[in-house]
Amino acid sequence: MINIDKIRNDFPILDEITYLDSASTSLTPIPVVEAISDYFLNYNANVGRGSYKIAIKAGQMIDKTRQNIANFINSNENEIVFTKNTTEAINIVANGLSFENNSNIIVSDIEHHSNIIPWLNLDNVDVNILKSENYQINIENLEEAINKNTKLVAINHISNAFGSMENLKAIEKIVHDNGSYLIIDGAQSIGHSNINVNEINPDFMAFPGHKGLLGPVGTGFLYIKEEHFKDVKPKNLGGGTIVDYENGKFKLEEPPYRYEGGTLNIAGFIGLNKAISYIESIGLKNIIGYTDNLSKKLYKGLNEINNIVIYANPKNFHNIVSFNIEGLNPYDVSKILDETENISLRSGFHCAIPGLKRYTITEGTIRASIHCYNNKEDIDKLISALTEISHLLS
Amino acid sequence: MINIDKIRNDFPILDEITYLDSASTSLTPIPVVEAISDYFLNYNANVGRGSYKIAIKAGQMIDKTRQNIANFINSNENEIVFTKNTTEAINIVANGLSFENNSNIIVSDIEHHSNIIPWLNLDNVDVNILKSENYQINIENLEEAINKNTKLVAINHISNAFGSMENLKAIEKIVHDNGSYLIIDGAQSIGHSNINVNEINPDFMAFPGHKGLLGPVGTGFLYIKEEHFKDVKPKNLGGGTIVDYENGKFKLEEPPYRYEGGTLNIAGFIGLNKAISYIESIGLKNIIGYTDNLSKKLYKGLNEINNIVIYANPKNFHNIVSFNIEGLNPYDVSKILDETENISLRSGFHCAIPGLKRYTITEGTIRASIHCYNNKEDIDKLISALTEISHLLS
Repeated sequence: MINIDKIRNDFPILDEITYLDSASTSLTPIPVVEAISDYFLNYNANVGRGSYKIAIKAGQMIDKTRQNIANFINSNENEIVFTKNTTEAINIVANGLSFENNSNIIVSDIEHHSNIIPWLNLDNVDVNILKSENYQINIENLEEAINKNTKLVAINHISNAFGSMENLKAIEKIVHDNGSYLIIDGAQSIGHSNINVNEINPDFMAFPGHKGLLGPVGTGFLYIKEEHFKDVKPKNLGGGTIVDYENGKFKLEEPPYRYEGGTLNIAGFIGLNKAISYIESIGLKNIIGYTDNLSKKLYKGLNEINNIVIYANPKNFHNIVSFNIEGLNPYDVSKILDETENISLRSGFHCAIPGLKRYTITEGTIRASIHCYNNKEDIDKLISALTEISHLLS
Repeated sequence: MINIDKIRNDFPILDEITYLDSASTSLTPIPVVEAISDYFLNYNANVGRGSYKIAIKAGQMIDKTRQNIANFINSNENEIVFTKNTTEAINIVANGLSFENNSNIIVSDIEHHSNIIPWLNLDNVDVNILKSENYQINIENLEEAINKNTKLVAINHISNAFGSMENLKAIEKIVHDNGSYLIIDGAQSIGHSNINVNEINPDFMAFPGHKGLLGPVGTGFLYIKEEHFKDVKPKNLGGGTIVDYENGKFKLEEPPYRYEGGTLNIAGFIGLNKAISYIESIGLKNIIGYTDNLSKKLYKGLNEINNIVIYANPKNFHNIVSFNIEGLNPYDVSKILDETENISLRSGFHCAIPGLKRYTITEGTIRASIHCYNNKEDIDKLISALTEISHLLS
């Protein structure tokens, strides 16, 4: 059970608006904002090479953040690379791996742009875009598509456009039986699903700090399985990434530091550390149960409105529901919801043009997405406003 | 003239410590911290594609930040790419340009690692490391070294290890007369020197938000001269970087957005916007005059201490002075300064191993660096503490 009133007190903006865009970025609870301010006002220093008290404290907080993230996903600490967002995490792998000629990559057609464009951007690799069915990879299609030249398979855990969760267990077996790498985009699953990299067994997995985890914008991280450090060449070198230099040759720092060139978003990661504690204080399991119920209520309510088209597998959606009112432009609907009811949700292509084209959605969708600070009244308010808009049409 | 007492009120940590490590990261004034909190508590939304009020406001603030940065360095808005730090800005250029075989790059031997290692990390390019003299490029040596295969020259504006400022006017002429690109690392100059890209005329220039500008960690930016957009291939693709997709082909967004994959550090850039206003409210010219006097006082005071070795050109140092007490390890000295006097400064190699090796500095240096919140008492305190340490030796 969660104490929703207590939670909502930590998000004062909810007194003003109904926020249903957590898949884009979550709101940030007061304790996280306070942790960030505390850094800036009380130990604002760079980390890594400082010998003075506030620099040492900042360094310890960053180390602690890495430990807590590693604990949260059950990895080793050195397997966690701090990034500015999920996109950067995926691009580190895309730009860092070497691909022989004739090798191919398989991605699904419902990926976020961040897990499809980096692969298409590579010069010498064929990208096979696997057609999804009912907003999900068809496992048999994957088995058929994968071949000896498949170097890597890139898929999301939960689709940001359709809320569908992939069958990671089946996918992982096929990919690793074939000797390929598996990279998973965890942008929509972390904080909404239990992530245990020992069980999921990806080679790489990319995460945001600012969505399910309730951390600040400007934070993300990449899990790299330790045995693959040697395969991923760092491409953002500079401060903190080397240990020695002599006559034009340099010696790289150990992972993860070799991937973290330049000054970190120290304030952001200290905020993320607090956010993970916040999630843990509520209990991830409690959050999942609570938001799952809200999601079902949302789907059910939408389903009862005339003229609504829902783009989801009724048996597989997670905190995200995409829909349209037939005959109305999604942007116009979201605009009306905002202006008349202060309901904040997103309309458009959700950085998933391939997926929307696949399902012949030509003008985008309206997308409602949920986190633990939402309540039943939020859902009722949305459903009631949409019902009214729908009535105007008939 | 600046009102130092008024300024120091905005940095409450200065009641506790003497901060002399601004070259690593500056302190962040209260108004900047408040701007960050204001975003998180009052309009915490993602930018770019939101149709609701708080998303629109966040988007407007990000646009405004870009305009203000462009005004600050006299560039066009679309020439400003937001990055997480200076290092990322330089790596965008290093990884994005194409280098023909046989092409070479010239860098100086006193660059920060972030402006030397990205170039050494390229596969098919020779890197010519130009020997500096008296902590500065010798213009004749540059003229001699540059040749028809020199694709790019990479130099810092002000050295982070020695505080020396390069003669950009002479360097720019040589580099462009030769038809090469000029990239300048502005990590130590912005906020401490007037940067006008129309006058300096670099092809690329990289900047931090969190040093001279007094903005938050997690922010930086890259100036790309508009005519070079076509030459720099984006390598961090994802959300926000494309406008269309069809059958495995994508169409890139216009610059700067194509270089800014994924969710921005929105809070950080809103803070940076406030920081630039803060700098402007004091007046950049006033800051430069004030800190220049403090720097001279620092140099003079150090120079009068027995057993001190200063690593600086007495006619060319800017807010940064590196030194050692003969016979003492720099780390030990900085540790004593912190523990006995709460003086925060950095010791070590300052991510400039090539430069320190060049000047046969084997154990690193102690580095004191200054910003507008420092006062004469800070300098007196440091000099007095160092004098005492030095006396213990004799």
